[in-house]
Amino acid sequence: MPRYRDLTHTAQPSSAPRVVEPKSSLRTTDPGVLQMLTMIQDRKTETVYDRVVAQQPQCTFGYNGICCRICIAGPCRIKKEDGPGSRGICGASAYTIVSRNLVRYIAGGTASHSEHARQLLHAAHALVEGRAPDYELKSPAKLLKLAEKLGLGTLGREDKEILQDVVELGYADFGRYQDRPLAFLDSFITEGRRRKFQHTNIMPRAIDGAVTEIIAQTAMGVDADPVNIIFGGLKTALADLAGSYIGTTLSDVMFGIPEPIVSEANLGVINPKMVNIAVHGHNPVLSEIVVAAARARQDDARKVGAEGINIVGICCTGNELLMREGVYLATSSASQEMAILTGALDAMVVDIQCIYPSVQTIAECYHTKVVTTELIMKIPGAQHIAFNPATALHDAQKLISIALEAYRQRDPRKISIPPERHKLVAGFSLEALRAIFANLCPERPISVLTEAILSGQLKGVALMAGCNNLKRLQDESHVNILKELVKNDVFVIATGCSAGAYAKFGLMSPLAVDAYAGAGLKSFLNTLEGANPQLSTGLPLVFHVGACVDNSRGMDLAIAMANELGVDIPKVPFVVSAPEAMHEKAIAIGTWAVTMGLPVHVGSLPPVEGSDLVYGLTTQIAHDVFGGNFIFEVEPLIGAAKLLDALEYRTWKLNIHQMTAEKHSTKVAQGW
Amino acid sequence: MPRYRDLTHTAQPSSAPRVVEPKSSLRTTDPGVLQMLTMIQDRKTETVYDRVVAQQPQCTFGYNGICCRICIAGPCRIKKEDGPGSRGICGASAYTIVSRNLVRYIAGGTASHSEHARQLLHAAHALVEGRAPDYELKSPAKLLKLAEKLGLGTLGREDKEILQDVVELGYADFGRYQDRPLAFLDSFITEGRRRKFQHTNIMPRAIDGAVTEIIAQTAMGVDADPVNIIFGGLKTALADLAGSYIGTTLSDVMFGIPEPIVSEANLGVINPKMVNIAVHGHNPVLSEIVVAAARARQDDARKVGAEGINIVGICCTGNELLMREGVYLATSSASQEMAILTGALDAMVVDIQCIYPSVQTIAECYHTKVVTTELIMKIPGAQHIAFNPATALHDAQKLISIALEAYRQRDPRKISIPPERHKLVAGFSLEALRAIFANLCPERPISVLTEAILSGQLKGVALMAGCNNLKRLQDESHVNILKELVKNDVFVIATGCSAGAYAKFGLMSPLAVDAYAGAGLKSFLNTLEGANPQLSTGLPLVFHVGACVDNSRGMDLAIAMANELGVDIPKVPFVVSAPEAMHEKAIAIGTWAVTMGLPVHVGSLPPVEGSDLVYGLTTQIAHDVFGGNFIFEVEPLIGAAKLLDALEYRTWKLNIHQMTAEKHSTKVAQGW
Repeated sequence: MPRYRDLTHTAQPSSAPRVVEPKSSLRTTDPGVLQMLTMIQDRKTETVYDRVVAQQPQCTFGYNGICCRICIAGPCRIKKEDGPGSRGICGASAYTIVSRNLVRYIAGGTASHSEHARQLLHAAHALVEGRAPDYELKSPAKLLKLAEKLGLGTLGREDKEILQDVVELGYADFGRYQDRPLAFLDSFITEGRRRKFQHTNIMPRAIDGAVTEIIAQTAMGVDADPVNIIFGGLKTALADLAGSYIGTTLSDVMFGIPEPIVSEANLGVINPKMVNIAVHGHNPVLSEIVVAAARARQDDARKVGAEGINIVGICCTGNELLMREGVYLATSSASQEMAILTGALDAMVVDIQCIYPSVQTIAECYHTKVVTTELIMKIPGAQHIAFNPATALHDAQKLISIALEAYRQRDPRKISIPPERHKLVAGFSLEALRAIFANLCPERPISVLTEAILSGQLKGVALMAGCNNLKRLQDESHVNILKELVKNDVFVIATGCSAGAYAKFGLMSPLAVDAYAGAGLKSFLNTLEGANPQLSTGLPLVFHVGACVDNSRGMDLAIAMANELGVDIPKVPFVVSAPEAMHEKAIAIGTWAVTMGLPVHVGSLPPVEGSDLVYGLTTQIAHDVFGGNFIFEVEPLIGAAKLLDALEYRTWKLNIHQMTAEKHSTKVAQGW
Repeated sequence: MPRYRDLTHTAQPSSAPRVVEPKSSLRTTDPGVLQMLTMIQDRKTETVYDRVVAQQPQCTFGYNGICCRICIAGPCRIKKEDGPGSRGICGASAYTIVSRNLVRYIAGGTASHSEHARQLLHAAHALVEGRAPDYELKSPAKLLKLAEKLGLGTLGREDKEILQDVVELGYADFGRYQDRPLAFLDSFITEGRRRKFQHTNIMPRAIDGAVTEIIAQTAMGVDADPVNIIFGGLKTALADLAGSYIGTTLSDVMFGIPEPIVSEANLGVINPKMVNIAVHGHNPVLSEIVVAAARARQDDARKVGAEGINIVGICCTGNELLMREGVYLATSSASQEMAILTGALDAMVVDIQCIYPSVQTIAECYHTKVVTTELIMKIPGAQHIAFNPATALHDAQKLISIALEAYRQRDPRKISIPPERHKLVAGFSLEALRAIFANLCPERPISVLTEAILSGQLKGVALMAGCNNLKRLQDESHVNILKELVKNDVFVIATGCSAGAYAKFGLMSPLAVDAYAGAGLKSFLNTLEGANPQLSTGLPLVFHVGACVDNSRGMDLAIAMANELGVDIPKVPFVVSAPEAMHEKAIAIGTWAVTMGLPVHVGSLPPVEGSDLVYGLTTQIAHDVFGGNFIFEVEPLIGAAKLLDALEYRTWKLNIHQMTAEKHSTKVAQGW
């Protein structure tokens, strides 16, 4: 009996939340954080690890998605028994309430990514119009490729002229009212997906319009049909993919396409002898300039008695800087407070998303200055420096000056930096991966990957993504699932706080290959390394492809594999996992990945268990219609097994298909 | 001691929700509904009045706004005591959580109104392009006025050409990315408000963009500052006002400006001898065509044995049809199920918003066909006929045919129609009111109203708005507050389900004037009637100005009064009350009314009591910055007293000001 029959994403959902055990406040496995918490245990500082315990037990109605607060006649909570309590006041069933709540999460994620993309558009627009003197167009090559994909003329035109067209198309994607698909989305998906989205009527016409529409669709007294609501959510999620794609591509155009780069991660990168500035959030438009400004101010640091300025990254802007500039990654989002607790962080400069309001509360016990920079993101008590692309370097200098001044206020008695730090190789944009593969097969670089899968050397590809969610111990699921996948010869790429976990644990180092990779993966990586002697450091166990917005790079790889194999995405041995998903963005990302035809494991349950129907929609029905499906599984090793099952099923089908085609000397049909 | 000192909007909020008493399921004061419930008490039909009782007691965390489900690490519930449980897992304080939840309600309302407006734009666009043969441009006069306000050229141009420009500007208002204010908003607000909004940085540039931005601003790890969040919410609410204004003005252009019209209301309008079709929802693009189609099919009704087709309205599309076509209003939103329980409703045709999913559940026990018509609004089990402006009459004919067919299936034993029905006068657009005033003062019609206030004959103007919320008995607060206001000589206009309540209770009849109006109001109305002999029916106690989207008409009146008085809106004796607010739209409307400078009473508390700071922002701080403020008060008579206080304060100040100006022979300064 082949193992693919064990696909257990059809298992009945459990009704009770897996509650956090309230016994321990050490809800992390990150060695740097564990060291930190031990070092400061006498300080009685309240951190996220305490707050998550204090919130237990969490409300089961909310956890299961059957609490409705969409109008103020509520809150309505759906009881399981029959009778009037089994519906909301308006008569909404559990399936209506669960699906409405779920797609509003997708709307939240899409709004977040689209604000991120909009900032890139604004910066690129300012660049084109000469209003952003501190920025440049670092990758004309990426611009040309993007413009060609978008169907824009490039021949004999100035780069800025082309960028202007790209920016205009990007803006149009936000506000289009005509019934035409999103240009950025349409430019890179497969023909099979294009047809599927048209056929199921989920091709969005505008990003902002998609958010507004799904919010309107889920208002009180509008859509009650869970299928229609979920399909509306899929449309919104595709707008999220477009926003992410705009974010990634324009970042590459403006700040350069990432290339393999060596750096280090975990709290030990904070240097007691230097002025330490953490950039935290998501927006490279800010953080790239902070890095540039810091490089020019090393002398000023020496004037205040430090050896220099040490920029460290947290969360996704940390990932962006790590990918492009090799900036150290101090920690990931869940442990952001730890950077301040070292007592050696002089400023934390934040932009948008995943920034705990508590950083200011904790900073008030230290000398650390928390500085917010965006109009839509302030924290009571924190300093606010309005950041503007037009005066970027000037604004960044102010931020540096704040840190220099704060450095003078350091209390040496409060400094306690965990020694934990690990070397790593990052910077694996799709372009970088292609270049590495090209040294084995210049004509069809991606075939190096697909042939390794067809031959059985690799089991497939997995994109590890998403946040931390302290419903489980921080990073435990990320790490355990990765180990299981690589042991079974899966080629793993990672983004966001999943990538952050691997960086912090030393799993992004070439040294980890020997320790954890299965024989197939090991030989695959060795062959690649042999063909790429220029990569003096070797290849990592898991490939860092960027921030959470860069999950679009993962999608790009899946599409490239589909094109190489001559099939649509649902046939590609490619899986996604967000073992510790937390943010609305993660739900949006997971949803578009499913809609694009991929199996997506989620280890922290979104609130779907209150309706078997919605649970079924996100699993079986999604699989039937789109070829992708959610796999909800909180136990990491079972989650890994399900991911391996999904890969095995796809490779098995693909091999059979390939063998049959070869046997009959027929070509593999497009869209089979 | 003058009474204005008693302004008690500064009262401390109470911490416990006023729970619904679980004793009675007759949670209504509507005489038609009470008759209905008595008639069917042996049927054991489950209605909204049962479900609201079954939901008691409601969750206090949700009620107070201190339950956060913005990421899936939650739900987090904020405990009052100190310690880690006093914050969300991310560290968000109660004020952050309350403000985030509150502005997401505003986003929901704005998305709803903007979808409504977008549908009008699509229909007008189709009309302009010749793709909507069943529609016409009924009010070129309104179009010209609108175009002039928008700064568009009209001289020597075809109507459709002008409409094309208007539509384009409307679309641009949805998707603009340049930093310019919304054209429709900018076209009709006062100069004082324009400056205030620029000064406080809350002038929106795009409707869809405003919704996306506030959702992004309130995502996990973004804005933690309640002041910044609330101001973001105000910006969103102004986008809601623009959407409402687009909805109202384009409806007038396409379907005509309402004029005084006589009709009837309450369940007794359902006619046992006719084919009864209820149109329910908000979109006149659908319901106007249904009326037209029905008029052409009276013969077909006779063929199935009926005396004809009787279209009745429910909720706001009922209000729109009542205003423009004199169509009977069967009932308001909260009692929508009752129309089906009469056993004589053959079809309920719904579009968007405020439609209980339970209508289908109940219809399944009767012969009634529930038909959904919009892509974003379906109900499991209900029939769906996709309505398209391009094939409007054809689609409407299908709906009529469904009703004719259903009529044959009626079970006479199940027919029980409450006799309750009341005559009323409706149709009071601002243009209609102006025309009535003009017969007393053709040069400055609005001065008839303002002079009556300055002279003390009237106490001011009140706009009664909003939904039903069964936290209190249906319509009780609407009716009791109205009676108190008119007794104290307040000129009252009403929209939405508030207007619906007055219509159903017979309070929109001229007969009610004698019974309830104070001496001042009575003499004012008598004088108006004397000058308008063409209005053979007399004037009503309360003036119906339209659907909930038509609260923009109320705003237009407040602006006209401000201009007449030579002051900005915060000085105008004009108050708003939503005694039974329920929908997200109501929160958006209330918020823009406050931001425009008006006192807004809300009788069903939005979830703000979990944070004294946010409560203070919506009351005192709002008043200090914008001159408007929320008055949260659940007891109708106390609410009415607070509204009268607010009016008295404004008229007192205005009179003093007026007298001082006259004494010194100075002109009243603009913007004083």
